[in-house]
Amino acid sequence: MNPCSSILLTDLYQLTMMQAYVEQGMMDTAVFEFFVRRLPAQRGFLMAAGLEQVLDFLEQLRVSQAELEWLEQTGRFSQSCLDYLETLRFSGDVHAMREGTVFFPNEPILRVRAPLPQAQLVETRIMNLLNFQTLIASKAARSVLVAGGKPLIDFGLRRAHGAEAGLLAARASYLAGFAGTATVLAGMEYDIPLYGTMAHSFVQAHKDEATAFEHLALSQPENAVLLIDTYDTEAAAHKVVALARSLRQQDIMVKGVRLDSGDLADHARKVRRILDEGGLPQARILASGNLDEYQLQRLIGSEAPIDSFAVGTAMTTSADAPSLDCAYKLQEYAGRPCRKRSEGKATWPGSKQVYRQYRHDGRCDHDLVTTVEASGTGDPLLHPVMTGGRRLVPAQKLTELRQRAATELALLPDSLRSLEGGQAYEVRISQPLHDLTLAVDQSV
Amino acid sequence: MNPCSSILLTDLYQLTMMQAYVEQGMMDTAVFEFFVRRLPAQRGFLMAAGLEQVLDFLEQLRVSQAELEWLEQTGRFSQSCLDYLETLRFSGDVHAMREGTVFFPNEPILRVRAPLPQAQLVETRIMNLLNFQTLIASKAARSVLVAGGKPLIDFGLRRAHGAEAGLLAARASYLAGFAGTATVLAGMEYDIPLYGTMAHSFVQAHKDEATAFEHLALSQPENAVLLIDTYDTEAAAHKVVALARSLRQQDIMVKGVRLDSGDLADHARKVRRILDEGGLPQARILASGNLDEYQLQRLIGSEAPIDSFAVGTAMTTSADAPSLDCAYKLQEYAGRPCRKRSEGKATWPGSKQVYRQYRHDGRCDHDLVTTVEASGTGDPLLHPVMTGGRRLVPAQKLTELRQRAATELALLPDSLRSLEGGQAYEVRISQPLHDLTLAVDQSV
Repeated sequence: MNPCSSILLTDLYQLTMMQAYVEQGMMDTAVFEFFVRRLPAQRGFLMAAGLEQVLDFLEQLRVSQAELEWLEQTGRFSQSCLDYLETLRFSGDVHAMREGTVFFPNEPILRVRAPLPQAQLVETRIMNLLNFQTLIASKAARSVLVAGGKPLIDFGLRRAHGAEAGLLAARASYLAGFAGTATVLAGMEYDIPLYGTMAHSFVQAHKDEATAFEHLALSQPENAVLLIDTYDTEAAAHKVVALARSLRQQDIMVKGVRLDSGDLADHARKVRRILDEGGLPQARILASGNLDEYQLQRLIGSEAPIDSFAVGTAMTTSADAPSLDCAYKLQEYAGRPCRKRSEGKATWPGSKQVYRQYRHDGRCDHDLVTTVEASGTGDPLLHPVMTGGRRLVPAQKLTELRQRAATELALLPDSLRSLEGGQAYEVRISQPLHDLTLAVDQSV
Repeated sequence: MNPCSSILLTDLYQLTMMQAYVEQGMMDTAVFEFFVRRLPAQRGFLMAAGLEQVLDFLEQLRVSQAELEWLEQTGRFSQSCLDYLETLRFSGDVHAMREGTVFFPNEPILRVRAPLPQAQLVETRIMNLLNFQTLIASKAARSVLVAGGKPLIDFGLRRAHGAEAGLLAARASYLAGFAGTATVLAGMEYDIPLYGTMAHSFVQAHKDEATAFEHLALSQPENAVLLIDTYDTEAAAHKVVALARSLRQQDIMVKGVRLDSGDLADHARKVRRILDEGGLPQARILASGNLDEYQLQRLIGSEAPIDSFAVGTAMTTSADAPSLDCAYKLQEYAGRPCRKRSEGKATWPGSKQVYRQYRHDGRCDHDLVTTVEASGTGDPLLHPVMTGGRRLVPAQKLTELRQRAATELALLPDSLRSLEGGQAYEVRISQPLHDLTLAVDQSV
């Protein structure tokens, strides 16, 4: 069984509520929107990601025979509920921000319009997919902004939270501007460029380090990146120089070296000198080891001669903010706008659109959140992507989404480009939306 | 394709190194161990979890035709490497701590003994599985320790990092002592008890809250837990009382209510009084909303009349420590012990065993890490679980593992039972292991 596409990847209460809806005949159209309530402390903006996986999930939504039988034998569900589930397909419409779009709190990035039981059932997986990829794209974008064009590679699979997290982190970080990933399956699934070097164990399995380097270079005559910190980094760099000399006659080049521990800037300077003096000016230096955007900023600021960086755990778990304060909330049922007023968790009612206004220099100036009926100036950010349960356009290529993300980052105001963050971006709530909120509150 | 069982759920360098090993005929037996280098700041102990999924992965390890063809068309791999992969099965031995075992830094919890290319290839997924479930079980155990026997329920799927993270967090938290989960698929896959209530949207979809409550109660005559904070918590509690009165004639009971926002202790006291005075002393109060072990400790310390707690995001992402500083390191190749000496990342060499010593009152006193050849007193914690690629015993029932975890928590010294943490637990490194380390360093 592939757990990633199961209809039972949901909370029990979705089925419980479905049963009540079916029994009460509450099949009218509902509108739900997914949005983020607040930015994590160390984020000035977010980057939308995960839409393609949401659309895949909605298109493929159906219960399997085994799932249906299991549900039945739990004794929890009425026959009418099981009958409804058996033939259930997603038949709704979806509007969404394109992946790679920069967005801010209180802005819906996805709107589902479907019969109430359908729109409710899919809440859990939609949140699960959008929360995670948006989280990772937003974190990865910070590294991209400070890397100054130096290639970044995702090395995070081993400490990602499970298989899907590893794959989707590779996807989301590539979308945000990483150059590639070490995760082989992400290369196969999403056509993401693959990068890899060698492990300390490869050195240890050999009786001496120089032989290990030679074996890797012979096996990867164009792509050998040698890990040089297993015992003594600078001593190993000298071994690389000697090896490169002896391999030159066989037309084998050492592509580069990897540093994975200690003071990376200091080692990089010493190793660069050894490589240059040894006739290997073309050999690249890759750095790894508990890197995040702050370490990257420090290393790049120190002008350490590092050519590319591998970023793992901190990015793939979004370590400083491992979740978003996000929600998927009912905004309208049977044509009646509604909202939640729980303490600290109140929402804006109705179906909404977001408009972005730009400054004269082309940078983003502010956004306006308003009702879909109201007019707005600027670019509308939510677009129709699914109608009647079918995608309106085929899945977009990841390289195209990545290009859009790069454009979005280029249009950020300077205050949002630094890690420390400056003035918060302005998101205005329109008068029509204020009016609607008042009307909804008075009607309850 | 089910990504969770793909052989390509690995880092590119594992395949690169495999190719070099195959070409060099380096097929001798390797020993790798998985361990944690340091505890996260807010943890006094860890709880081993994820072994069953590791054993599943190893037993099922094989390349599919589609994967093999894709690897071939990348042009990255030699024919000898592809031929090796085509028939590859895992044929090694595994020793491990049982799931639910409490452990500490520098203690191997899993040891793989297999031909080098096999033992290397499986590194990434083994780390991915053990890091995550151990992380979650260890975090969940903290909530269990402060909950004082009150039931805890996993509500974390929506903000878990993908599908597998949601499922395995449900498993790991149940193992650690949670009462159950809201994740339906985890109920089906792992036979974990399911719990659920209703969402705010269910209230909002109805024109008034009282009707929503009635519809849920009619649909769940024995299991209705009503969410009462959508508009005004205490007003809603009065509606529950009135509803229960009118439903009594139909033999429908309101099982309980859920609080999800505001000052949970204050609301719980007010709601408890309303329910008691309204003739519903048996109705239970469930609290949810950004709970973690610190909130639980505070709420339980305040003697708020809350009967059970739903814990979501903080637990399912291990928010205060979203990864472990863990490693899977080569300890021995072709009978020769080895170790890594990288700055700050040095390891103890050779195949190791961990012995636990207990005090007179039965509580844990200290552990000893030593070589497998050396003798030790106390309970050995690593046991054979797989030989020649096959499990030695069938997968253990999760309820049995859960019982072991409960016993382990009961045996913790008091200093490890508080959230604040006390004296660190003592892990001794034996003289034979010190001697071996010295011998290995002198031989390089």
